[in-house]
Amino acid sequence: GVLGSGDFARSLAVRLVCSGFKVVVGSRNPKRKASLFPAAAEVTFQAEAVKKADVIFVAIFREHYSTLCDLADVLMGKILVDVSNNTEINHHKESNAEYLASLFPACTVVKGFNVVSAWTLQSGARDGNKQVLICSNNQEAKRTVAEIAQVMGFTPVDMGCMSSAREIENIPLRLLPAWKIPIFLALGLFLCFFTYNLIRQVIHPYIREQKNKLYKIPIEVVNTTLPCVSYVMLSLVYLPGVLAACSQLYYGTKYRRFPDWLDQWLLHRKQIGLLSFFCAALHAVYSLCLPMRRSHRYLLIETAVKQAVEKKMTIWVEEEVWRMEIYISVGIIALGLLSLLAITSLPSIANSLNWREFSFIQ
Amino acid sequence: GVLGSGDFARSLAVRLVCSGFKVVVGSRNPKRKASLFPAAAEVTFQAEAVKKADVIFVAIFREHYSTLCDLADVLMGKILVDVSNNTEINHHKESNAEYLASLFPACTVVKGFNVVSAWTLQSGARDGNKQVLICSNNQEAKRTVAEIAQVMGFTPVDMGCMSSAREIENIPLRLLPAWKIPIFLALGLFLCFFTYNLIRQVIHPYIREQKNKLYKIPIEVVNTTLPCVSYVMLSLVYLPGVLAACSQLYYGTKYRRFPDWLDQWLLHRKQIGLLSFFCAALHAVYSLCLPMRRSHRYLLIETAVKQAVEKKMTIWVEEEVWRMEIYISVGIIALGLLSLLAITSLPSIANSLNWREFSFIQ
Amino acid sequence: GVLGSGDFARSLAVRLVCSGFKVVVGSRNPKRKASLFPAAAEVTFQAEAVKKADVIFVAIFREHYSTLCDLADVLMGKILVDVSNNTEINHHKESNAEYLASLFPACTVVKGFNVVSAWTLQSGARDGNKQVLICSNNQEAKRTVAEIAQVMGFTPVDMGCMSSAREIENIPLRLLPAWKIPIFLALGLFLCFFTYNLIRQVIHPYIREQKNKLYKIPIEVVNTTLPCVSYVMLSLVYLPGVLAACSQLYYGTKYRRFPDWLDQWLLHRKQIGLLSFFCAALHAVYSLCLPMRRSHRYLLIETAVKQAVEKKMTIWVEEEVWRMEIYISVGIIALGLLSLLAITSLPSIANSLNWREFSFIQ
Repeated sequence: GVLGSGDFARSLAVRLVCSGFKVVVGSRNPKRKASLFPAAAEVTFQAEAVKKADVIFVAIFREHYSTLCDLADVLMGKILVDVSNNTEINHHKESNAEYLASLFPACTVVKGFNVVSAWTLQSGARDGNKQVLICSNNQEAKRTVAEIAQVMGFTPVDMGCMSSAREIENIPLRLLPAWKIPIFLALGLFLCFFTYNLIRQVIHPYIREQKNKLYKIPIEVVNTTLPCVSYVMLSLVYLPGVLAACSQLYYGTKYRRFPDWLDQWLLHRKQIGLLSFFCAALHAVYSLCLPMRRSHRYLLIETAVKQAVEKKMTIWVEEEVWRMEIYISVGIIALGLLSLLAITSLPSIANSLNWREFSFIQ
Repeated sequence: GVLGSGDFARSLAVRLVCSGFKVVVGSRNPKRKASLFPAAAEVTFQAEAVKKADVIFVAIFREHYSTLCDLADVLMGKILVDVSNNTEINHHKESNAEYLASLFPACTVVKGFNVVSAWTLQSGARDGNKQVLICSNNQEAKRTVAEIAQVMGFTPVDMGCMSSAREIENIPLRLLPAWKIPIFLALGLFLCFFTYNLIRQVIHPYIREQKNKLYKIPIEVVNTTLPCVSYVMLSLVYLPGVLAACSQLYYGTKYRRFPDWLDQWLLHRKQIGLLSFFCAALHAVYSLCLPMRRSHRYLLIETAVKQAVEKKMTIWVEEEVWRMEIYISVGIIALGLLSLLAITSLPSIANSLNWREFSFIQ
Repeated sequence: GVLGSGDFARSLAVRLVCSGFKVVVGSRNPKRKASLFPAAAEVTFQAEAVKKADVIFVAIFREHYSTLCDLADVLMGKILVDVSNNTEINHHKESNAEYLASLFPACTVVKGFNVVSAWTLQSGARDGNKQVLICSNNQEAKRTVAEIAQVMGFTPVDMGCMSSAREIENIPLRLLPAWKIPIFLALGLFLCFFTYNLIRQVIHPYIREQKNKLYKIPIEVVNTTLPCVSYVMLSLVYLPGVLAACSQLYYGTKYRRFPDWLDQWLLHRKQIGLLSFFCAALHAVYSLCLPMRRSHRYLLIETAVKQAVEKKMTIWVEEEVWRMEIYISVGIIALGLLSLLAITSLPSIANSLNWREFSFIQ
């Protein structure tokens, strides 16, 4: 049974019908809404729909839950699946599912399907990876809903009892939470190093020698800033592991919890590492662009003209040559290794490595 | 039970035995064929094999289905799994599974396993992602076959009733259908812009000033063409969304279906976007190669020599320098952002993003 | 039931409790260890724990298996899940699971969960891809454990009967076995070609003309070596397929097994191909870096000065220009195609292609 006639209710009905279930839709205007649903789904009044179904998807907004109170009698003993989402994180004091359960104490409420969009319901049958997080206080009901999810082509994941509902409801609202701190960290570091390099490469020569080097800002200053950020970030990836080991040695046990800041730090290592790789890759691209620039060309021609006029035939400085050759070759090797690390962090590749292989590559 | 002794029948038997099933193989020459099958599988005559099994995989060609008609009596009430494929899309009027069902009305026919190759059956046990699409008019039989698929390590996907069989049979024959239109579009755009740039950079200077610039064709003309293609493709990714929104506003409803061409366009956005990224990436590589070329070197030296002979010491043009620095730095940033978009389109990463994160990145 | 109180036992208990199972932990010091386990898990003496549970996870080291012999009576008829790992490949004559089964002939032993780390047990609930390999001689017990794994959010994979236990126990110890031969092959080829190029580009000019070209070693010699390695590796990808086809034609059958060396070679093609791509990509980066080097700059200026002093106005060599333009443009196209091949080898993309699409791209 599906209560509601919005986008989600329609997509849910379509998918359930396609997966071989008998679907009955409950609506307050069954005649007007019937055309929205697939022909195989029976659209009828809410009370009738509820009577015919054992598992009822409640696809209406939290604000309208109370309108279902008239149905309390027919709903008794049924499994209600709360598929609702909020518009803000922790908007209400209690999660939608717990609120629904408090309204209908005679029903078994299961939270689920809220992480799946109406669009995925309609189109995603081919991709068995999509997960549906489910929680409930009733194991039996949870298993029933998990089986429905599986037949619909999703991977049900048991999230434990009803108190996880809030967490599940927050999932579709989260916005890359693991990336926030690392990104602000990278931006902060970039700003510091950029200011330093700006002063050193542009402002200082201007003040001391009145040389206008402003053209260096968009590429050269950025390009000397990026590897600094990359280095610091990379060291921040490996530092917390060392700190954790020291703390374990100091306390002589590995069962003592780390302080919160260290815990958070340890959890963000992957993101910090990927940002470090991103900066290194940008540095590589910027460096490769250097000889493409007009300024590079002009400086080269000017040097050549000066040499020719003064009839100096050779300007070869062995030390400079060697320094550059070694810089570049070490840089390429470092970028290659970092790329390897970045590739192994792709979920589909990380899943195919065992622990020993993962630590070997690290 | 497995009927047939081809590659697929053998691989199926091997996998079923490995997954703990009791397998009986029906063949017309059980003695000659027995050596091809694993020792744990019993190879016997077709009629005997059918008697002993409840679920029978029909691993023979459609053309030979009629040879099974003698077995109609013993087959009565059994589940037949049609694993066959065609050699051409929509080769026959009715799908193989429907044809099999029409031959044996007393059996329950389930379509499945045709999307799995013999090779995957033998080697792929480790990869639980591989999907097996199943359809049948009988829910019970469908569930039985789905369970077998699951035990074999595949992810069964319910595709509804028998009428989906044609669609399932066409899947192994499709050849990147979603890419066809975008690729022809990209090729068409490339041709147009290439012709324009060829005329402008090579043919026009030749006619007007008799200058031979043919050497520009392989790199410089291609390199000015690629970003044009990339830009137009990128705009084609975001245009249909705007058109769809306009159409919804105009008709005042979001339940009206879009016209077919707009629907198709909306569905191809991802492929168009990836091709746009591919052109942009190629443009980046071509641009980076510019200073590597002999022609670049010769032009540079010629300018230097000319300047030296005329004793002009400076050729610095501030405006040109700035234009180039800004071009390059904006180009790198654009490519970086486009790379991010391309990475999030990898299936394993797209699956781990929720809708809000996905639209934020877009 | 869980026997043991190490890291793995704790993580297992946490995950089982979270997945809605009733967990009882057996320990020799239940009072001291109780604090390590979640509150919902009952921690008691081993004999008592065993009595209360039907499925018992044996999370203790192989060396201590014999200490469980006192429990033989209460263990009778229970399902024992062996989750142990070894520290070395093929350390013991018989696998841990078979050893456990020999100690408790009245129990049903199932091997499983050893490929999952304690860390994955605690944190990985979100990723339904993680596989748990299971084997046992008892189908019923295997199915029970597979169901537990599924409810815990893992994908159980049936690996057949107990004799697979050794193979399963070796999996967490393997270290990229498929990469060993291809990597040594690549290193060997690199060394050969490097020596040849070193002699040709550095040592020979030094001996014949006393020219010091040592600065070429880190970049130019490496850069001419990489494409040679890449070419040979690429040809080694396609050669075994031809050999296999020849062998099949020669023997007139495709059911004859290939000789072992050919089989191994065929299985390593993907890794050889990826290393070939890696070398080609490195070659591209090295080539792009060429004009960035000081040596390139000095040579350019020296040529310009020489030309200016001798008042030669033109050094344009049409043939050289064309050769370079064509080299570079063909190189970019080849690298683009090779990148496409490399991308389709990502597991998440390879899974979404059918056989026809895969061979088309190849």
